[in-house]
Amino acid sequence: MNNFPSKETIIDAPQRIAAFIHQTPVLTCSSLNQIVGCDLHFKCENFQKMGAFKMRGAAYAVDSLNEEAKRKGVATHSSGNFAQALALSAKNHGIKAHIVMPENSPKVKKAAVLGYGAEVTDCASNLAARESTLKEVVAQTGATFVHPFNDWDVIIGNSTCANELLQQVADLDYIVSPVGGGGLISGIALAVHYLSPKTKVIGGEPMNADDAFRSLKAGNIVPVQNPDTIADGLRTSLGDKTFAVISELVEEIICVSEEEIIAAMRMVWERMKIIIEPSSAVSLAAVIKGQPKFEGKKVGVIFSGGNVDVEKLPF
Amino acid sequence: MNNFPSKETIIDAPQRIAAFIHQTPVLTCSSLNQIVGCDLHFKCENFQKMGAFKMRGAAYAVDSLNEEAKRKGVATHSSGNFAQALALSAKNHGIKAHIVMPENSPKVKKAAVLGYGAEVTDCASNLAARESTLKEVVAQTGATFVHPFNDWDVIIGNSTCANELLQQVADLDYIVSPVGGGGLISGIALAVHYLSPKTKVIGGEPMNADDAFRSLKAGNIVPVQNPDTIADGLRTSLGDKTFAVISELVEEIICVSEEEIIAAMRMVWERMKIIIEPSSAVSLAAVIKGQPKFEGKKVGVIFSGGNVDVEKLPF
Repeated sequence: MNNFPSKETIIDAPQRIAAFIHQTPVLTCSSLNQIVGCDLHFKCENFQKMGAFKMRGAAYAVDSLNEEAKRKGVATHSSGNFAQALALSAKNHGIKAHIVMPENSPKVKKAAVLGYGAEVTDCASNLAARESTLKEVVAQTGATFVHPFNDWDVIIGNSTCANELLQQVADLDYIVSPVGGGGLISGIALAVHYLSPKTKVIGGEPMNADDAFRSLKAGNIVPVQNPDTIADGLRTSLGDKTFAVISELVEEIICVSEEEIIAAMRMVWERMKIIIEPSSAVSLAAVIKGQPKFEGKKVGVIFSGGNVDVEKLPF
Repeated sequence: MNNFPSKETIIDAPQRIAAFIHQTPVLTCSSLNQIVGCDLHFKCENFQKMGAFKMRGAAYAVDSLNEEAKRKGVATHSSGNFAQALALSAKNHGIKAHIVMPENSPKVKKAAVLGYGAEVTDCASNLAARESTLKEVVAQTGATFVHPFNDWDVIIGNSTCANELLQQVADLDYIVSPVGGGGLISGIALAVHYLSPKTKVIGGEPMNADDAFRSLKAGNIVPVQNPDTIADGLRTSLGDKTFAVISELVEEIICVSEEEIIAAMRMVWERMKIIIEPSSAVSLAAVIKGQPKFEGKKVGVIFSGGNVDVEKLPF
């Protein structure tokens, strides 16, 4: 843990980004408690600015730049939420954002990024093209590359989600979070480690993108190839920083099927009347799958975002 | 106004039903404020028990029965939310509910009513059959008929929605509510009349079920025949009590098209990440339609419920 962010850094993070994010509410639902058999507390990042927790990490990373770096701006490659989060964070600080977007990115997301005043560079829709295009952009502009998840500042920003939750709900036995690239759960695990060490952190992951599960088992990063899951935010594989944090501080990864993800998503839409994206539903699906471990326990469930295309629903 | 519920009754209503309903949250959304051009405060009855404001009126009506009436139980005819609300309220008081339901009622709603322990009597799917079957049930059981909206106790119960809102948000210029049978807006108008007389109450109504608009214009009740609107909660026509309150205390009815309802619903789903039913969207659609009246004003918008079939969406 030598190179992990310090306790002081994690404690100070919320006030650093307070002006740029929402303190999201924690909701409960008695009918879901009855169905699932535990005391569920849902941390609603679907109500975050941009509709996803990504805003926290992007806000912190931009705030952490020195003045010279701010003059040169930030850059990233992303087809989705992180692109918007970084573009908006750059706008909030009056600096430039250069976003490399695969040519098949949803038009509405590209329009949103442009709407925040970012410069968009198109590239072919594969990781090699994204990375080489980004390199060119960085070489030309001197912008600081902010990785969507494998970046300590992004992880520290994401930790504020758990920091808030732990203040909103006392004595949680568990916090269950979705795992994609691992940026969210790493932030959560760090906050819990320092602020509520009795609480156990568990990851939920789609079976069809189970790189975190396999990586923890193997003891090294085992990336997934072309994962096919409805939980589009969880298709990425761990990076070295997120793997290190998860290996050390996360209790277990529970894998869930596509059917279990869709059933959990529908349960939340119908019972709680809130819109969550499939990636969010993976947390609740993992709690249901992981019973009887959670029986009668006080469980924080992270809803990571609410950005869905209402014309393309799985029900 | 001689026969309207008194100020004291309206003020006392919330504590009478506090144990049986949720105090629902008021949400705001800066991007909707920008789009619409005013300061919107959404009262979220989609998060009410049962998923709709109907719980308030049913809870109050059941609580108001004397001991002998409670022994004989309650009865109503309804294909939807009020059936569930009355069945649950009866269960909460340990009394019987007899619900007459048209044979084409959604199975899931019938199952919910049965799940609350109510007795269900099927009938043909027209108003005459509903009323005659209800008469038989009442004659056999001695149960008290509780009308879904044209009933003072139901209206008083519904008034608690505005009572809460006025405490949650000070100095509202307007409250905009959907109008179906008028039970909700009548309760709101009474609460506003007594508690915040400067606030104006405006109704939103589907053009395709514009009986309240026509009735106010004509000065007498003009029922609609077979209204065809996606706002399924607003297909009913006013009763004598709700017509009297609306005539006296509601400023204006704004009528909106089906397209406007669907567009407003989608805006809320996508921007606010909450699930509202089409009837709820009529309020917001009316605010958008009614501009520039609302420009820069502080407007309470009532979301009446969130019960939608996620397999049958209009987008």
